[in-house]
Amino acid sequence: MGMDGPIGDFLKTLHAEIGAITDGAPASYIPELAKADPNLCGIAVATVDGAVHVAGDWDHPFTIQSISKAFVYGHALEVHGRERVLRQVGVEPSGDSFNSIALDTVNKRPFNPMVNSGAIATAELIAGTDAGERQANLATLLARFAGRPLPLDEATYLSEKATGHRNRAIAWMMLSAGMIERDPEDVLDLYFRQCSYNVTARDLAIMGATLANDGVNPITGDRALDAEYCPDVLTVMLSCGMYNYAGQWAYEVGLPAKSGVSGGILAVIPGQAAIAIFSPPIDANGNSARALAACKRIAERFGLHLFRTHPDPRGVIRYELDGRQVRSKRTRSLRELEILFRAGPRIRLIAVQDALYFGSTDRLLRRAAELAEQADYLILDMRRVSRADAASRALLAQFHARMQAAGDRLIFANLDADGPLGDLGLGAGTIFESRDRALEYCEDRLIAEILPGGEVCEPRFADFELFRGLDTADLARLEAIAARLSFAAGATIAREGAEGDRFFVLVSGHASVSAEVATPTGLKTVRFSVLGAGQSFGERALIDGGPRTADVIADGPVELLAFRVADVEALAAGHPAILIRLLANMAGELSERLQVANAEIRALER
Amino acid sequence: MGMDGPIGDFLKTLHAEIGAITDGAPASYIPELAKADPNLCGIAVATVDGAVHVAGDWDHPFTIQSISKAFVYGHALEVHGRERVLRQVGVEPSGDSFNSIALDTVNKRPFNPMVNSGAIATAELIAGTDAGERQANLATLLARFAGRPLPLDEATYLSEKATGHRNRAIAWMMLSAGMIERDPEDVLDLYFRQCSYNVTARDLAIMGATLANDGVNPITGDRALDAEYCPDVLTVMLSCGMYNYAGQWAYEVGLPAKSGVSGGILAVIPGQAAIAIFSPPIDANGNSARALAACKRIAERFGLHLFRTHPDPRGVIRYELDGRQVRSKRTRSLRELEILFRAGPRIRLIAVQDALYFGSTDRLLRRAAELAEQADYLILDMRRVSRADAASRALLAQFHARMQAAGDRLIFANLDADGPLGDLGLGAGTIFESRDRALEYCEDRLIAEILPGGEVCEPRFADFELFRGLDTADLARLEAIAARLSFAAGATIAREGAEGDRFFVLVSGHASVSAEVATPTGLKTVRFSVLGAGQSFGERALIDGGPRTADVIADGPVELLAFRVADVEALAAGHPAILIRLLANMAGELSERLQVANAEIRALER
Repeated sequence: MGMDGPIGDFLKTLHAEIGAITDGAPASYIPELAKADPNLCGIAVATVDGAVHVAGDWDHPFTIQSISKAFVYGHALEVHGRERVLRQVGVEPSGDSFNSIALDTVNKRPFNPMVNSGAIATAELIAGTDAGERQANLATLLARFAGRPLPLDEATYLSEKATGHRNRAIAWMMLSAGMIERDPEDVLDLYFRQCSYNVTARDLAIMGATLANDGVNPITGDRALDAEYCPDVLTVMLSCGMYNYAGQWAYEVGLPAKSGVSGGILAVIPGQAAIAIFSPPIDANGNSARALAACKRIAERFGLHLFRTHPDPRGVIRYELDGRQVRSKRTRSLRELEILFRAGPRIRLIAVQDALYFGSTDRLLRRAAELAEQADYLILDMRRVSRADAASRALLAQFHARMQAAGDRLIFANLDADGPLGDLGLGAGTIFESRDRALEYCEDRLIAEILPGGEVCEPRFADFELFRGLDTADLARLEAIAARLSFAAGATIAREGAEGDRFFVLVSGHASVSAEVATPTGLKTVRFSVLGAGQSFGERALIDGGPRTADVIADGPVELLAFRVADVEALAAGHPAILIRLLANMAGELSERLQVANAEIRALER
Repeated sequence: MGMDGPIGDFLKTLHAEIGAITDGAPASYIPELAKADPNLCGIAVATVDGAVHVAGDWDHPFTIQSISKAFVYGHALEVHGRERVLRQVGVEPSGDSFNSIALDTVNKRPFNPMVNSGAIATAELIAGTDAGERQANLATLLARFAGRPLPLDEATYLSEKATGHRNRAIAWMMLSAGMIERDPEDVLDLYFRQCSYNVTARDLAIMGATLANDGVNPITGDRALDAEYCPDVLTVMLSCGMYNYAGQWAYEVGLPAKSGVSGGILAVIPGQAAIAIFSPPIDANGNSARALAACKRIAERFGLHLFRTHPDPRGVIRYELDGRQVRSKRTRSLRELEILFRAGPRIRLIAVQDALYFGSTDRLLRRAAELAEQADYLILDMRRVSRADAASRALLAQFHARMQAAGDRLIFANLDADGPLGDLGLGAGTIFESRDRALEYCEDRLIAEILPGGEVCEPRFADFELFRGLDTADLARLEAIAARLSFAAGATIAREGAEGDRFFVLVSGHASVSAEVATPTGLKTVRFSVLGAGQSFGERALIDGGPRTADVIADGPVELLAFRVADVEALAAGHPAILIRLLANMAGELSERLQVANAEIRALER
C-alpha cells in the first residue's frame, strides 16, 4: 500500500491544466521582474497541522512583493494596537488600482493597507528606533511566518529603489498631507526591502497557513503574530487584497487573499490551510493569470468559498431521555425503584454533540429552558462536544446561574476541565465525571426528598439473593464458613487480573465494579455496575478459578462476607443442593448484569 | 422552572443600552421618512430553526428601503443566471456613497447591486412581461422571504416617486450609457415600490434567517431563493452592503449585512441566524446609529465575526486501533484466534468524528494513506461523523477508488446512505452497517488467506463447553434427552421477552445475540455477541425460568440441541453432579460474555 493524499494528486493535475493558460505577461514596471521566465508555475498548499502538498516549480524563488503587505500590517497592529493603526491607514476598499495615488481626504489616511499608499504608511509603523533595527525586525517578522530566514533579493531591491518613482510620489504626497511623519526615503527604503525578500510557493503557503493557524507557524510551532490580530489581517485581505478585483474575487473565490506583481497569489482558508501559487504572467489588474485560474478551480473543487459552507446548529442535540428511560448503575431497592419509576420524568437528560458556538448554544439552551419547565433536574451530557467557543462557555455559565437562582438544578456530565469546554467555574454538585454519576446524584436527591431518612438496608443472611432457595439447615452450614470483612471508602476489594480463592457477598454499603480505559483526554474510570447489599462478586473463583475480571472498589464503608472456594466445595461434597443453588443464583445474577451491560451498549450506540 | 434563553435576555439588556445613544437623525431626503419617531428602537434575532428572540419596538412597521436590494438581487440571479446578471451589474465595492452617480465605465455597468444605480439596474431584471406581472412577482418574492404578504406603504412610495429626482438622474444616465434598456420611469416605479414595503424588525430577521438557511424560510419552510445563489447575495452584502462603511463594517462586525435609510440594518450569520435592528436616526454614511452599535456589540459578545471562529480539522481522528486491539464479536476457534493475534496489525481502524470538509478530510486521508502503508485492511468508522460536504464525499470516493486500484481494501463502517455522508456509490464488500461487521469481514478474509479450507468446526457432544467436566455416563444421560433442531439463515431462534422452557447448545453454524435500538436515524440492530459451535444460550430457562433477554438469530444454517428444563431437572434428582456441572459451565460462559460486553463498553466510552 502507499500513495499521496488526494489533495496532492489534485494539485499535480491542476498544475498541468493551468500550464496551458498563456494570458498576461510578467510585470514590466520593475525592470528586474520583467526578466522572469513566463513558463514558471509552482503550487503549494500548507495545512494548519504542518503538511505541505506541492506541484510544479514550488521551490523556485521569487520576490514576495505586495504579499508582504499583509504580514507587515499584522505586525503594525501587534506593535501599535488597532486604534493607532486605524488613524494611520483605513480598512475601506477604494475601488482603485494598487498604485493609485488617491487618498481618503475625509479621514486623512490612505484607504487601506493593501494598496501601495497604505502599505507605505504601514511600513512607517515597523518597530525599531533606527533604520537598522527596523530592517532587522522586518527580517525577523517574515522569517517567523516562513519558518526560515528569507534572503533579500538585492538586485530587485536596488531595481525598485532606483525606479520606484510613482511610490516616491505617493510617499511625498502623504508627507505633505501629514499621513506619514518620517523622511519618505527612509520609509520607502523599508517598503522596497519588504517587497524584495525571496520566497518560494512553499514558503508562501506556510506563511499563509500561519495566518490560518491563528498566528502560529504550523511547521516550527513559533508564534509569528498575536492571534488577536489574525482576523483583522484576513478581513482586510478579503475586502482589499486583490485591489480593484477584490469584489469579483470575493464573489468567485471567497477567500482572504493577497497578490503580488511578481506573479504570486496567497489565499488563506481560515483554520484549515493556505494556497500559494506562483506564475509570473500577470493580467491588467496586476494578478497572476494562472494563479487566479488555479485559485478559482481549487475553491470550486473543494467548496472553499466562505459562504459555501457553514455550520449547522440543528444537530447539537443528539437525543433526550428522562429518568425513567435511563438510570444510573447504582443498585436500588424495590422501594427506591418504585420512587424512581414514579418520579423519573422529573430528571431530564440532553446528550449534546459537536461544536458549541452562538447558533448551536442558543438552540441547546432554548430546548434546555423548555425541558427545565417540566423537570427538577436537567443533565447536559457533554461527552460528544468537540469544541466550544468563549461565547458558548459564557452562555452556559450564565444559564447555569439563572437556573440556580430559580432554585432549579442544571447538572453537567462529562464536563472535564481539560476538555473542550474548559473550566466553567461552576459550583460543587453541578459537574460530574460521567453520565452515570450525574444520574446517581439526581436519583439520590429525588429519593432523599421522598424517603428523607433513607432505608435501613442491611438484609439478614437468609435474604441474600445468592442464598435464595436454600433451607435453614444449609443456610446455617454456609454461615458457619463465612468470614466477615470491613473496607473503608475507596478501598480496592478486588483488582482486575488478580487470582482469587474466595467470593464475596455485600452485607452493607455499595461497591463499584469498574476498570480504567484510555480515552483521547487520558485515563478514565468506566463504571460497569454498582453492587448493593445482598449482591455477590468474585464468583469466577467458584465457577472456574479464573482471575478477577474487573476492579471492585468500596464506594463508602463496606461490610461483606467472604467464602473460601475450598470450604464451599468441601461442604458441597455432602450437601450438593447448596452448590446447585449457589451456582444457579450466581448464574442468574451474571445474567442480569449481562442484561444491564447490553442495555448500556444500546444506550451508547445511540 | 422556566425562563427565556440567554439570547433573549441579552437582547433586552442591549435594547436598554443602545436606547441611550442619541447620535444621528431620521433620513430627511424622503419627506415621509423624516416624520419617523427618533426614539423607536426594535431588535429581533431569528434562527435557522425558526426561533425568534425580540426586544423593544420589534413589531413597529417601517419601510424596508435599501435592504430590499439584497433580496431582489437574489431573485435576478435565480431568474437570469450569474453571467447575465454580471453583465448588467458588477460586484465591486466602489468606495462611494449609496446614492453616487459614479458608474463602472470600463465594464459599462454600475459597480455593484447595493448602491442605488446597481439596484435600479437589478430592478429591471425582475421577472414579468408587463408592469403588473413584475409588481406581483416582487410582492411574492418579498412575501416568501418574510413568511407573510408585506403591505406596501403607499405614502412613502408616492413620496419617493414624487421626490426621487437623483435616482431619476441615475436611471437616465444609465439609459444613455446603455446599462438599462426599458423606460427609466417604468424601472424606477418598480424600484420605488421595492423600497416602500413595510416590515417589522421581526419580519426582517426572518428574511435574513432565510438567507442564513440556504434560501428556505425557517418559519414557513417555503423556499424563497435557490440555495445556489445565497452565497452570492451574502458575498455582495459583505463587500458592498454597508456602502462606504463596508470595509470598516467587515473589519469590526464581519458579517454580511445591508442597511436602509429608514433606520434598519440586517446582518446575517450564515447557517445560524439573522439580526435585524430598527431605529430611525441615521449617521452620515446612511446607517442607523443605534443599529450599528447594537450589531457591533452582538458580534463581539457572541464572537460572530467571520474570521473570529473557524473550524479545527485536527480533531477529525478520534482514535486509531489495530486488529489486535479490537476484534469483532464473532466467536473464533483457538486456531483462528492465534491467526488474528499474529496478523491483527494488518487490520487498521480509524474512528472518524465531527464534520468532514476540505481541511479535515485532507488530514484524515493523509493519515489513512500512512496507515494503508502498514496494513492490508483499513476501516474508517464513520459513526461520529456529523456532517460532510460534497468535496469531502468526492475525496473519500476518489481515495477508495485509488486504494482498490492498488489492490488494497478501504472499508467503511457505519456509512449509512441516509446519514451525513449519503451514498458514496462504492462497491460491495466496502460498506458495513457497524464496526463489528466490518471487523468480522476483515478477520474472515485474513483467516481465509491463511486457512483457505476453513476449519471443520462441528464438535462432538463430549467437546461442548457446556458439558465440560461431565463423565461418560452423565454425557450419555444428557444426550438421551436432547432434541436436534435445524434453522435456516435469518431464522429467529429466540425472541427477546418470550417465555422459554428450553435451553440450547449450538452444534454447527453461528447465531447472533442482538436487539433493536432506536437511534437518531431510525431503528438499528445492535449485536451483542456471536455464538459458535459448542456455545449455549437460553440458560435463564434453567437458572430461574425468566424470559429471553435478547433475540438469537441464525447467521447461516444452524444445527442445535434443545434441552427441556423439566427433563434436566428430573435427571438431576438422581444425578446432582450433572446439574452442578451444567450450572457452573453456564455461569462461566455468562461471565465471559459479561467480560466481552464490558470490553465493548470501554471501547464505546472512548
